[in-house]
Amino acid sequence: MSSVEIEIVAYIAKDPEVKYTTTGAKVLEFSLPHENRKEETEWYNCAIWGEKRVDALGWLKKGMGVFVRGELVITAKDGKIYRNVNVDKMQVIGGGKQEDDSVPF
Amino acid sequence: MSSVEIEIVAYIAKDPEVKYTTTGAKVLEFSLPHENRKEETEWYNCAIWGEKRVDALGWLKKGMGVFVRGELVITAKDGKIYRNVNVDKMQVIGGGKQEDDSVPF
Amino acid sequence: MSSVEIEIVAYIAKDPEVKYTTTGAKVLEFSLPHENRKEETEWYNCAIWGEKRVDALGWLKKGMGVFVRGELVITAKDGKIYRNVNVDKMQVIGGGKQEDDSVPF
Amino acid sequence: MSSVEIEIVAYIAKDPEVKYTTTGAKVLEFSLPHENRKEETEWYNCAIWGEKRVDALGWLKKGMGVFVRGELVITAKDGKIYRNVNVDKMQVIGGGKQEDDSVPF
Repeated sequence: MSSVEIEIVAYIAKDPEVKYTTTGAKVLEFSLPHENRKEETEWYNCAIWGEKRVDALGWLKKGMGVFVRGELVITAKDGKIYRNVNVDKMQVIGGGKQEDDSVPF
Repeated sequence: MSSVEIEIVAYIAKDPEVKYTTTGAKVLEFSLPHENRKEETEWYNCAIWGEKRVDALGWLKKGMGVFVRGELVITAKDGKIYRNVNVDKMQVIGGGKQEDDSVPF
Repeated sequence: MSSVEIEIVAYIAKDPEVKYTTTGAKVLEFSLPHENRKEETEWYNCAIWGEKRVDALGWLKKGMGVFVRGELVITAKDGKIYRNVNVDKMQVIGGGKQEDDSVPF
Repeated sequence: MSSVEIEIVAYIAKDPEVKYTTTGAKVLEFSLPHENRKEETEWYNCAIWGEKRVDALGWLKKGMGVFVRGELVITAKDGKIYRNVNVDKMQVIGGGKQEDDSVPF
């Protein structure tokens, strides 16, 4: 058995969007850009699952700084790489401090 | 600016190999398997750079359990995904405890 | 708001013990030693809460290597420091590999 | 052998200070507050060592959000607990984004 986790510290690139899966599950999606050593921008497409969490994060906005930990799911299509993160933990840390910016994880 | 790191806890699949780049740099390579949620095995090809480190890790063997943190570099070729990790920190924790299993990071 | 987490990679010093709080909650306790830079041994007293988790971890033994992440609660009494960890995540990685060593977190 | 690391995501409480040890080593000090479950504030006194690093961090200010990883050194005096962190990695993520907020680690 083994464990793999990714940890990202970055700014939210644009306002998060609430989406629904075909089975009706609610998910909050946002992207985190990261400039790698080659000065290319990698995009991490983050998803927060669970209706309670999604509803509690209505204040999450573009430009906020976050620490995110989760499971990285990679896919490739036509030579392009897609990086998806199922978020297990998130801590907001800047760019729009709230009265209560706690995240219900 | 941003930071992305991957953390893996897994068993070394086979004996590490010392390799040399075309410019003569010494690197220690080994692979860590991880079974994901879909029960597919993902392979993390780890590289430890630096002659001193490589030389100090001659005792690292197949079957040892390790915690590894580093930079994840992903490439795709013919629809296949390759996961490479430049190791920043490693801690050996099982399957062949040594008198001195410290890692010179 | 803020977040603080401790991450430990170490060997379990002696067999874990199941205990009960005065309110009847079940907890699994074990200790992880860490030799610090001054070559003193620091002890991290780990606690895993939740009846299901505790019951699923009957195979956890002395000598196994683990990665543990959690909340660190420090107390001091008569000049002595006590380090307690409420475990949020654990991955067993050596010294007694099991058929199924998954941890129900 | 073992490894213990602490990871903190928090706001810098007041402007960092440059100090010198009795042997002339330069160190940058700042504090990160964390409210624990009992709603007490724990203070993490962070130290960044190395003249190059210290000199490169002149722009670090009160109110900025940071992710910090390092070694936790705990002391106790008269029943009071002191939490000191030797910083190994830092990423600034909010409250004063800079043109270049890279940290030379």
